[in-house]
Amino acid sequence: MVGWANRRFLDLVGTDHPIVQAPMAGAGGVELCIAAIQGGALGSLPCAMLSADQARAQVAEVRERAGGPLNLNFFCHRMPEPVDDSAWRALLRTYYEEYGLEPADGGALRMPFDDEMCAVVEQVRPEVVSFHFGLPEAELLRRVKANGAVVVGCATSVEEARWLEERGADAIIAQGFEAGGHTGRFLRSDPAEAMGLFALLPQVADAVSVPVIAAGGICDGRGIAAALTLGASGVQVGSAYLHCPESLLTDGQRTMLRERTTLFTNIYSGGLARAVRGRLVEEIGAIRGDAPPYPLAGAVTMPLYRAAVQRGDVELLPNLAGQSAARGTPLPAAELTRKLAADALAMRSPRA
Amino acid sequence: MVGWANRRFLDLVGTDHPIVQAPMAGAGGVELCIAAIQGGALGSLPCAMLSADQARAQVAEVRERAGGPLNLNFFCHRMPEPVDDSAWRALLRTYYEEYGLEPADGGALRMPFDDEMCAVVEQVRPEVVSFHFGLPEAELLRRVKANGAVVVGCATSVEEARWLEERGADAIIAQGFEAGGHTGRFLRSDPAEAMGLFALLPQVADAVSVPVIAAGGICDGRGIAAALTLGASGVQVGSAYLHCPESLLTDGQRTMLRERTTLFTNIYSGGLARAVRGRLVEEIGAIRGDAPPYPLAGAVTMPLYRAAVQRGDVELLPNLAGQSAARGTPLPAAELTRKLAADALAMRSPRA
Repeated sequence: MVGWANRRFLDLVGTDHPIVQAPMAGAGGVELCIAAIQGGALGSLPCAMLSADQARAQVAEVRERAGGPLNLNFFCHRMPEPVDDSAWRALLRTYYEEYGLEPADGGALRMPFDDEMCAVVEQVRPEVVSFHFGLPEAELLRRVKANGAVVVGCATSVEEARWLEERGADAIIAQGFEAGGHTGRFLRSDPAEAMGLFALLPQVADAVSVPVIAAGGICDGRGIAAALTLGASGVQVGSAYLHCPESLLTDGQRTMLRERTTLFTNIYSGGLARAVRGRLVEEIGAIRGDAPPYPLAGAVTMPLYRAAVQRGDVELLPNLAGQSAARGTPLPAAELTRKLAADALAMRSPRA
Repeated sequence: MVGWANRRFLDLVGTDHPIVQAPMAGAGGVELCIAAIQGGALGSLPCAMLSADQARAQVAEVRERAGGPLNLNFFCHRMPEPVDDSAWRALLRTYYEEYGLEPADGGALRMPFDDEMCAVVEQVRPEVVSFHFGLPEAELLRRVKANGAVVVGCATSVEEARWLEERGADAIIAQGFEAGGHTGRFLRSDPAEAMGLFALLPQVADAVSVPVIAAGGICDGRGIAAALTLGASGVQVGSAYLHCPESLLTDGQRTMLRERTTLFTNIYSGGLARAVRGRLVEEIGAIRGDAPPYPLAGAVTMPLYRAAVQRGDVELLPNLAGQSAARGTPLPAAELTRKLAADALAMRSPRA
């Protein structure tokens, strides 16, 4: 039987295929995670915007319905001090008025991994825990590892990859410039230094000894095979799963993915994230120096998203997605996972 | 004998290996081109900053010493109207004073392909002519094609790739965000839409029927094999050749390539180009809204480069390079070419 030649990720994590279904808060939840696991991928639950109870409940549902390894994803940013966001609120006031929202309406913020979430990890025992924006403080990280979880960190540079390996990451995501959602950059903040996956991946693979998971722009079997060729032993696929029936996207959002380009913007959370162009970016600009620091800007913009969802108005949604988002196949996620794997395994070497 | 499975580029151009030695004005000239041809690549001469006589002389030398196909590279921008560059000159005055230069000193500019250069092409009959920033006007393009040259265009988006194919390009470079030098973007100017090669390449390969040449961040056999997997039938390699003894770089510049990151800047020519960080970027910033439009800013900065070269002061040089520039191997260019090809051919399929 034909199988994967590179088993480093597979042996570490225990999946059939070297594919991580990317955690995508607001776009993928329990259903997408379950279907990806059923297809042989590592399923992920984005937990940064969940309460501890919500996280426990989602894990319980996944465990009941799917038998493979599960990844819980958390963010590790440091919460900034509260800032005066009156200018930011003033900028968005016209949208609040349009949607009939009160300016005081707050919104859920991405919260850093903390003692309470660590207790959830200890209770539900996920096979994998992945962190964005570095790693949690040493004692929390020790508890996660003592619990038996494989710890995955996210690097956007060689420097970050080395930092993660030195602190105990068992595998490292090399997140290219192409990736949708928040860029995981945490050591240097100059976005002008962002690296494309083609340059980043082999440099990271050469720099660390742990398995490397490629992320950014990978949406088909060719991309998986190319990433393995460049030194990855696994891939993280996000936007391709957005087209699956199990994703939380509306039809309008799926159409936007097909028809529009993406760019980095900080207007949705205060942090740089790749998103599909939409009305808010066109009207106030993609990069705003006056946006409160991550994740505080989201407290003001989040109520707009909720109102937009209720109205079925896709233009004001963040629509986080990567540079290959237009190319996804609208298959059920289990089937898509199996197709991605089969197509990658069918790719040939460059020689005749 | 083991050979390349994908022969579309090879059959179009007639080289042994599907590798284009990238044209790099100021960094690679006759010697690099000759060595690359001897190694089995398509050798390139950057002609945008040469006079017609210089171009003829360089081609004559290549023809005398190397037997394989040759690519002449030209730029196709429209020259802007002269602008008031007094603010730009004032900004750079301190550097002129430091180097003892007169403010009136002019510099060579990248000139668009014109009737005179077209006559050179008709006379010296290169096997390949590649264009940056689109294609020349229809009559000039007709003459180049009538002369038997394979015409190669450069695309940074699917839209540009389709535009080039519709107008008669015989092959299309998919230039990723990772690539050093001037981004070839010519249809839309928003740099926020720049695409990484991992996302761009398969989208371009799916969109056009002519052979696609991948460019950006490719510096070893893995990169070549991955590009072929993603749909290319050839690759363009630039920065990897900068480390060869045949390149025009000083030792100081080679050290900079190894130790520094790259970013896009418009301060060297007025157009966006990826370069190694250096003193000028640190002191005046990478992106200046007050820089005269491409290529006019270069008339003021170019005398600084010449003075810097004479002093062996690498900090003020443009040092255009891509995101994999740190990883080049300092082999002679013919040997590097053969090694790139052999390493790519040795890569295996993803399956066991």
